[in-house]
Amino acid sequence: MQAGKPILYSYFRSSCSWRVRIALALKSIDYETIPVNLIKDGGQQFSEEFQALNPMKQVPALKIDGITICQSLAIIEYLEETRPTPRLLPRDPKKRASVRMISNLIAGGIQPLQNLSVLKEVGQEKQLAWAQKTISSGFNALEQILQSTAGKYCVGDEVSMADLCLVPQVANAERFKVDLTLYPTISHINKSLLALEAFQVSHPSRQPDTPPELRA
Amino acid sequence: MQAGKPILYSYFRSSCSWRVRIALALKSIDYETIPVNLIKDGGQQFSEEFQALNPMKQVPALKIDGITICQSLAIIEYLEETRPTPRLLPRDPKKRASVRMISNLIAGGIQPLQNLSVLKEVGQEKQLAWAQKTISSGFNALEQILQSTAGKYCVGDEVSMADLCLVPQVANAERFKVDLTLYPTISHINKSLLALEAFQVSHPSRQPDTPPELRA
Repeated sequence: MQAGKPILYSYFRSSCSWRVRIALALKSIDYETIPVNLIKDGGQQFSEEFQALNPMKQVPALKIDGITICQSLAIIEYLEETRPTPRLLPRDPKKRASVRMISNLIAGGIQPLQNLSVLKEVGQEKQLAWAQKTISSGFNALEQILQSTAGKYCVGDEVSMADLCLVPQVANAERFKVDLTLYPTISHINKSLLALEAFQVSHPSRQPDTPPELRA
Repeated sequence: MQAGKPILYSYFRSSCSWRVRIALALKSIDYETIPVNLIKDGGQQFSEEFQALNPMKQVPALKIDGITICQSLAIIEYLEETRPTPRLLPRDPKKRASVRMISNLIAGGIQPLQNLSVLKEVGQEKQLAWAQKTISSGFNALEQILQSTAGKYCVGDEVSMADLCLVPQVANAERFKVDLTLYPTISHINKSLLALEAFQVSHPSRQPDTPPELRA
């Protein structure tokens, strides 16, 4: 395999894909997007071709440096190790622990419980209440944790991997009509982050596969 | 805060706690266990005292070096950065990516969907089928991924963070009566790992809070 331009398998609305898009944007990594529509054709992630790439049948997947990496946090950590500027993990191990704790809280403790495949299992009637409960429960914890870690952003005043997880999760919260006034710290940080270029160009409303009616 | 002996808030049967116990054992870190019974008293993780420690109301939590870290992967990465011997992440960034991909697949893609709080929501009748489906779906993917990453263990021939995630997840699969003969690679690696001292002393059957009838 040749190491050409990285290829991101992505879905415009996938919050996990958005995390990686922000990392790529912040690090000024030029890449190509191959859209994987999670709804169309019964879900293009279930195609044989895509399953060969990611047996978990999920986006994102990143082809880079001759390998394919799945799982958004694993991708971001790889980018950080191989393209360290600007850094997405602080230098201090204790602050790195805070960044990873918040990232995993969102990526392991909130998002998986409100993703498409789980909501399908839960059923149409109950899915809004389920998603709201899951996100609120995680945000209650997160709001409390941020009291002691946050500066301008989730951990201090530098953008970190935790912020890459926060913004897409807040967007999901908005989709599921979670009352964000209950989470002033989360909301404030989210707003500051959305003002940054990297969070804007990676936004679901500005992707190659964004439907025209949802375009910014 | 003084940096004394680390304190692990743990529940003998929690697969996420077991991950961290293996890391502590492999790195020969002496620590004290404070058991948090997830069942008794309606769940001791819901106590005010514990919520102050981990707002997510989950084990494990590790007090170490004057800080408290929650989320098992964040804890393991911190231990790796501050106590690097023996290493739980390979030196090569591409192999590190494989380790983190597998770790996150289990910690984000399987375990959260079959943990106690989700099963409660799903309800008694459906919870066995739900857990089996979740674990099987993840193991189908994992079995395929391991074809290209595994040596003696999940990634090559050195024990890594991925293995710390694998063994406790296989134990959960056994509890939920998942047919493991479908996953020969997973089963084989699991067996090799269980032969290691660090996986034995950290086993749920040998913890301070293991009920007498479940003791090895």
